[in-house]
Amino acid sequence: MNIIIDAFGGDNAPLEVILGSKRAIENLEDVHMILVGDEGKIKACAERNHISLRGLEIVHTDSVIDICEEPTEIIKSKNDCSMAVGMKMLAEGKGDAFISAGSTGALVVGATFIVKRIKGIKRTAIATMLPTSKKPFLLIDAGANHDCRPEMLVQFAIMGSIYMEKIMDRRTPGVYLANIGEEASKGRELEHLTYDLLSSANVNFCGNVEARDLPVGDIDVCVTDGFTGNMLLKLYEGMGKMMSRELKGLMTSNFISKLGALCMLKGVKKFRKKMDYTEYGGAPLLGVSKPVIKAHGSSDANAFYHAIIQAKSCVESNVVDEISNSLKEMKV
Amino acid sequence: MNIIIDAFGGDNAPLEVILGSKRAIENLEDVHMILVGDEGKIKACAERNHISLRGLEIVHTDSVIDICEEPTEIIKSKNDCSMAVGMKMLAEGKGDAFISAGSTGALVVGATFIVKRIKGIKRTAIATMLPTSKKPFLLIDAGANHDCRPEMLVQFAIMGSIYMEKIMDRRTPGVYLANIGEEASKGRELEHLTYDLLSSANVNFCGNVEARDLPVGDIDVCVTDGFTGNMLLKLYEGMGKMMSRELKGLMTSNFISKLGALCMLKGVKKFRKKMDYTEYGGAPLLGVSKPVIKAHGSSDANAFYHAIIQAKSCVESNVVDEISNSLKEMKV
Repeated sequence: MNIIIDAFGGDNAPLEVILGSKRAIENLEDVHMILVGDEGKIKACAERNHISLRGLEIVHTDSVIDICEEPTEIIKSKNDCSMAVGMKMLAEGKGDAFISAGSTGALVVGATFIVKRIKGIKRTAIATMLPTSKKPFLLIDAGANHDCRPEMLVQFAIMGSIYMEKIMDRRTPGVYLANIGEEASKGRELEHLTYDLLSSANVNFCGNVEARDLPVGDIDVCVTDGFTGNMLLKLYEGMGKMMSRELKGLMTSNFISKLGALCMLKGVKKFRKKMDYTEYGGAPLLGVSKPVIKAHGSSDANAFYHAIIQAKSCVESNVVDEISNSLKEMKV
Repeated sequence: MNIIIDAFGGDNAPLEVILGSKRAIENLEDVHMILVGDEGKIKACAERNHISLRGLEIVHTDSVIDICEEPTEIIKSKNDCSMAVGMKMLAEGKGDAFISAGSTGALVVGATFIVKRIKGIKRTAIATMLPTSKKPFLLIDAGANHDCRPEMLVQFAIMGSIYMEKIMDRRTPGVYLANIGEEASKGRELEHLTYDLLSSANVNFCGNVEARDLPVGDIDVCVTDGFTGNMLLKLYEGMGKMMSRELKGLMTSNFISKLGALCMLKGVKKFRKKMDYTEYGGAPLLGVSKPVIKAHGSSDANAFYHAIIQAKSCVESNVVDEISNSLKEMKV
């Protein structure tokens, strides 16, 4: 299997991309990695860090799309950037999946116009795993589409449900609609109409979920529009960081508290692991005709490695075909 | 000053309402408390708990509006409930402020149609203080209006700014628009148009704030529509609860960790206090022609006491007149 990776996406490129890719070819069966980006810079970085590039294929391009640039530039002035070239290769069948930690907006535009959507899919959506006290859940859409219609949210629900079943091994995943109350009458017109459609859709729709219940961890899929989803995702991240900082402050404020912290080191490590996003890989763009994974902008080698595992799972379990077939059956 | 309180709003009514009100008349200068609700039940509860009702005025009504009922019932079949009667008294000048821990929806409808809005105000908004690592900030609208127009959000910004200045002693409060990115071009049409209007409004508008930066605590006012605001508020609550639970779990998992927890008890208490909502009182409904405070549904005596202090501050600092004058000057 050929996995294409944007060597110049994210804050830690290209070093951590190289390290994650190395780990993948050494540990995963049947994985060939293709790094797209400035060959000279990749080689210089590898040399500086005493890393052998043996076994990694490099496809050269010297342009990179910046996170500040207009996302649509990926199909205009920046159509030769590492992200665009990687997606063109994916579209042409030169790879089975594509991973980038670069601009989310550009990735969504590129996935839609270069790789193309699955037939019948109205919009691609970003699906992100979020940690909770119990099991993690999938938030979809986490930011690709600000304005959504009810039928888009229904497709997000179907795609999220398939992803959780095929990739995360959840049986008949519980799908919930993010809302400001549990009752069907709550929310805006978008939530009312979506609630009705989801009630008769071929997913295990369990009703509305309030944001306060998300961290409890009783749900599998949380469906919402990309504006609300992005707000939830970022507050989730921000609260997690704040609490970690406060916990660290608590534990290191004086000699006695440091002693105390030592006594609960094991628990703290376990907690950190549970809250660690990197273990879930990246966020798949669902609805695209080939697997495209958005890795977190701050991904390190471990996060890239897990994104590669995730890409491999998506290819092996035919998530794209499963989504395509479900849509044909359901005619949504 | 006469402060009217709904004796039958919230999960802990009427006991905690009585206790909070008692504490207010004993500790605050020039405060007379009027409890609205079933007199028999109030007296029985006081007797059962050996509390003297001396100094507290009771206005009898036997009906209560439930949190599950349609909010508009407060001006229809339930126009004799404790919340409605309290607000009618406020409108008639029999009190200076009103507090309830009952249904938020009913309180918003009642405040709008019984107490009435300030002239020129398009919508009343719920303003909630949220704790952060540094100073708390005000979230407005936290849930009164699902669908908002840009000019409503500008009024929320002005009202929030005045509240933070007059009640929370913040000088030239920094006002931010909740958005999915810091750049002016981010977000939906609502955010684009609001950003433009806020840039020339008479508030200290500092641009967009991403949800991940809210818990950092560098802002004074966060403006958003009531749907997004309610999502943020509830996720904030939910994450706080989850983290507290995890922290408790960490500290009590075994004998050694319990010892460790003892070593950092002081820090934990300080952290809990910082994250404690009850100290900020309740959430004022801004834009109403008299002070109306929504206390948290799970309020205890301490939370009611702080809501009473807050109501007193609103009366004394003429928040309503300040908002009214600002609107006249700004012609928004």
